[in-house]
Amino acid sequence: MLRHRAVISRLRQACRLQSVPSRLCIRACSTNDSLQPQCPSLAFSGDNSSPRGWRVMGTLLGLGAVLAYHDHRCRAAEKSPHIYTREEVRSHSSPETRIWVTLGCEVFDVTEFVDLHPGGASKLMLAAGGPLEPFWALYAVHDQPHVREILAQYKVGELSPEDKAPSTLQTSDPYADDPIRHPALKVNSQRPFNAEPPPELLTENYITPNPIFFTRNHLPVPNLDPETYRLHVVGPPGCQSLFLSLDDLYQFPKHEITVTLQCAGNRRSEMTWFKEVKGLAWNTGAISTACWAGARLCDVLAKAGHQLCETEAHVCFEGLDSDPTGTAYGASIPLARAMDPEAEVLLAYEMNGQPLPRDHGFPVRVVVPGVVGARHVKWVGKVSVEPEESYSHWQRRDYKGFSPSVDWDTVDFDSAPSIQELPVQSAITEPKDGETVQSGEVTIKGYAWSGGGRAVVRVDVSLDGGLTWQVAELDGEEQRPRKAWAWRLWHLQAPVPAGKKELNIVCKAVDDSYNVQPDTVAPIWNLRGVLSNAWHRVHVRVTP
Amino acid sequence: MLRHRAVISRLRQACRLQSVPSRLCIRACSTNDSLQPQCPSLAFSGDNSSPRGWRVMGTLLGLGAVLAYHDHRCRAAEKSPHIYTREEVRSHSSPETRIWVTLGCEVFDVTEFVDLHPGGASKLMLAAGGPLEPFWALYAVHDQPHVREILAQYKVGELSPEDKAPSTLQTSDPYADDPIRHPALKVNSQRPFNAEPPPELLTENYITPNPIFFTRNHLPVPNLDPETYRLHVVGPPGCQSLFLSLDDLYQFPKHEITVTLQCAGNRRSEMTWFKEVKGLAWNTGAISTACWAGARLCDVLAKAGHQLCETEAHVCFEGLDSDPTGTAYGASIPLARAMDPEAEVLLAYEMNGQPLPRDHGFPVRVVVPGVVGARHVKWVGKVSVEPEESYSHWQRRDYKGFSPSVDWDTVDFDSAPSIQELPVQSAITEPKDGETVQSGEVTIKGYAWSGGGRAVVRVDVSLDGGLTWQVAELDGEEQRPRKAWAWRLWHLQAPVPAGKKELNIVCKAVDDSYNVQPDTVAPIWNLRGVLSNAWHRVHVRVTP
Repeated sequence: MLRHRAVISRLRQACRLQSVPSRLCIRACSTNDSLQPQCPSLAFSGDNSSPRGWRVMGTLLGLGAVLAYHDHRCRAAEKSPHIYTREEVRSHSSPETRIWVTLGCEVFDVTEFVDLHPGGASKLMLAAGGPLEPFWALYAVHDQPHVREILAQYKVGELSPEDKAPSTLQTSDPYADDPIRHPALKVNSQRPFNAEPPPELLTENYITPNPIFFTRNHLPVPNLDPETYRLHVVGPPGCQSLFLSLDDLYQFPKHEITVTLQCAGNRRSEMTWFKEVKGLAWNTGAISTACWAGARLCDVLAKAGHQLCETEAHVCFEGLDSDPTGTAYGASIPLARAMDPEAEVLLAYEMNGQPLPRDHGFPVRVVVPGVVGARHVKWVGKVSVEPEESYSHWQRRDYKGFSPSVDWDTVDFDSAPSIQELPVQSAITEPKDGETVQSGEVTIKGYAWSGGGRAVVRVDVSLDGGLTWQVAELDGEEQRPRKAWAWRLWHLQAPVPAGKKELNIVCKAVDDSYNVQPDTVAPIWNLRGVLSNAWHRVHVRVTP
Repeated sequence: MLRHRAVISRLRQACRLQSVPSRLCIRACSTNDSLQPQCPSLAFSGDNSSPRGWRVMGTLLGLGAVLAYHDHRCRAAEKSPHIYTREEVRSHSSPETRIWVTLGCEVFDVTEFVDLHPGGASKLMLAAGGPLEPFWALYAVHDQPHVREILAQYKVGELSPEDKAPSTLQTSDPYADDPIRHPALKVNSQRPFNAEPPPELLTENYITPNPIFFTRNHLPVPNLDPETYRLHVVGPPGCQSLFLSLDDLYQFPKHEITVTLQCAGNRRSEMTWFKEVKGLAWNTGAISTACWAGARLCDVLAKAGHQLCETEAHVCFEGLDSDPTGTAYGASIPLARAMDPEAEVLLAYEMNGQPLPRDHGFPVRVVVPGVVGARHVKWVGKVSVEPEESYSHWQRRDYKGFSPSVDWDTVDFDSAPSIQELPVQSAITEPKDGETVQSGEVTIKGYAWSGGGRAVVRVDVSLDGGLTWQVAELDGEEQRPRKAWAWRLWHLQAPVPAGKKELNIVCKAVDDSYNVQPDTVAPIWNLRGVLSNAWHRVHVRVTP
């Protein structure tokens, strides 16, 4: 025990030095699996929502986990390796079938380790039945000798050398050339590809890592050559058009802003529970945040000779993605927004310091801070100023809100404005609905955001379905006035009321115009299932 | 009957010619009061929400009412007149005590006429026990020979010549010099004067007549001399201040805009029903709309040498109203809003084509479109640009929103932003809560507005407490994009579901950022009772 006490002491010291946000829980436990030698071990549960939290966890891993598990012996490692196919590995993805993962060509049974994973069991489970590499690429803290050492103890075999990656798609498939995606993404539709990060990862970082940024494609992903790419900017009457190469775009002042994108259909699945809607069943993850860099649209339009005019006009964008008939994705925003330097509309060519990933518009996409994702046209090929909104289906026959009384027989799309700025929104990402939480204290985490640059000024959280409320702590810094383009992550640590066997956790946000979220979803239900921003509700059980 | 049929026919023809909005109801009825000769008469119930409606009603009055009541004989008119005091008249203000009104020095018992009043009984009842002049001044259609002819039939006597206006207030009263107010206003507080128009009149006109525009005073009304009035505009460091006379202000380009003002406490009384709050018990009438004219604040600030700066700054306003210690009313808005020509912030000297009434800031007030009333500083005497918000009590220790969990022991005013833009709002003005409506069809009217220039794009109305919804018709024209500073009035004519004995009427509005109102008031309750914008609910009974 003396040795473990020393470890605990070193861990505590490390956490104090790094200001771990209070909830470091160190407990002795034992594994009872007969296949493992019984030994006391340590589990660490800390706030790991921030990169710093992850670094701390990495340190904890380095200091503690290796020591804690040193007695674990992997029987498989001492035999000649079994050979498994990827298919076999995939079938081991639950506690019942045991939980296998791969790293390189090695196969590991991590069933016993899942509950001890410093980042939480649910995060390791995201990789169950598949490779660890995509997750380690996201969270580099893993790729260290002492983590490999832990993993080595769970080795059960190796991958069959013949077992290659999944067979390539048929070339007649228009989606055959779509990029490879991160396995953590929860796929709502493969063709076109639409997927969201799981709640466990969504608010793990303020900046969403590119590979798990939610993806909303309407069409196959075009494969564009950056050398030959040209952005066609139609000039005003009597002026010539511009055809800008990437190098031309780089000549404009580079503007960098952190912006949250949200799909109009985020949280649609909650509307579906009330009554069927038409659309992808997004959960809470059709929202993500990145630091975008590019040329300001106002600079490019000015270069082309455009000016703000007295009469209302619109900037129309056409994507280079198109359907089999050649119809491209399109959308528009008001010229007044496009020309306003304070609105910071970008023709972005970088996402979190990298060239745009193909799924996010390589080489250039529009970024319209504070506005619904549908207007952030990806793979943008053409920009023009028109007296009317884009005639695109997605501008005029989609992405509009209606009364709950309107159905597909009565809907008149011309009667509603196209969605531009979005209403105030928030959701809980931890704990998850249906989870079981410890009695004592519960940590609740989530995100909040509002459209139009309106800052989130408060998030209220209830443990009793909305009868009483507590104010959550907003993480990170305030944003610039009128330019709160990015979300606020938030958390609340609250005592679980004594004797409670379940909690109905609810969150609701307030923005700086003091707009609030509606209580319930039914009165905002609409046939396309957009604008789903009622209070977010999560039901959990409490362990006695 | 032949004669009455002819009258009905003429009325119907007149209405067709003038496109009376459908609900013209002509019914035969008889008065049973033994003091009146029994005779058949006619009542007219039509849409009179618009000036046109009123004109139509005036015409109906001309065509029909005189004929319809020609048999009424006022016994008082045939005797030598009784003499009554104002006090006696005031005591006749209900059906039980009979309903008297005065015009000039004449006294009328209009008990029998109330239900026949073309504008509706409730509107005539606003004058019960008092003079008609203030109402006739608002609705000039009344001041016509045929209306006087009808009235003459109800004469019961004359006012005592000795009975003067109420004795003047004591001069030691700081409010002694406050102006005379319109009797229709529902007074929430006399000192300082705070009053709202009754719902019957609130949405009678798109532009609220000056005398019934809601009044929110924090202090006694200053009595300012327009000749000596000077607006002190503090210059930037190193520049001289301006001291602008009214004539100086008139030299700036005159800018005219229609703007709705709303008090942060509008609909506070609904919060009070849930739990006590601190503040005046406003109903739905702490909101009104006027056409304001004046100099743009940005022009005046530019003239003084101010420019928009990179760092956040605030324009502070000081009123010339002050408390006994000399502390003036004050408030501020961000410099970015003040300097933005598109935000159209005014130093207004006209309200609906008239010099500002004293209660509304004579000679000059600030008008900040889309922003809470508290920042529209009246009787403005000083304007300065400061690095911080105004240090006024009303900026820093009031007009802020908090979680329902915050009470007077825990409130931290610095933790919440001062209210600037207001959230989306709507309310029902007809029918009133507790009223009885006819079966068949019900007409529901109200207003809807949102802060920040966001247009109201839809109003949903429910007759069943929010289970099902119908879309109301928005009256008037759309406003300019991003500058929807004024409310939209709306109406819905809906069949009363057969067999219903009561209706729970609810309205909720949607703005062009698709923000919506919350379902219920408890979760937005706050200790100051501000920002009360839950669905508005009205319960009515249905006559079988």
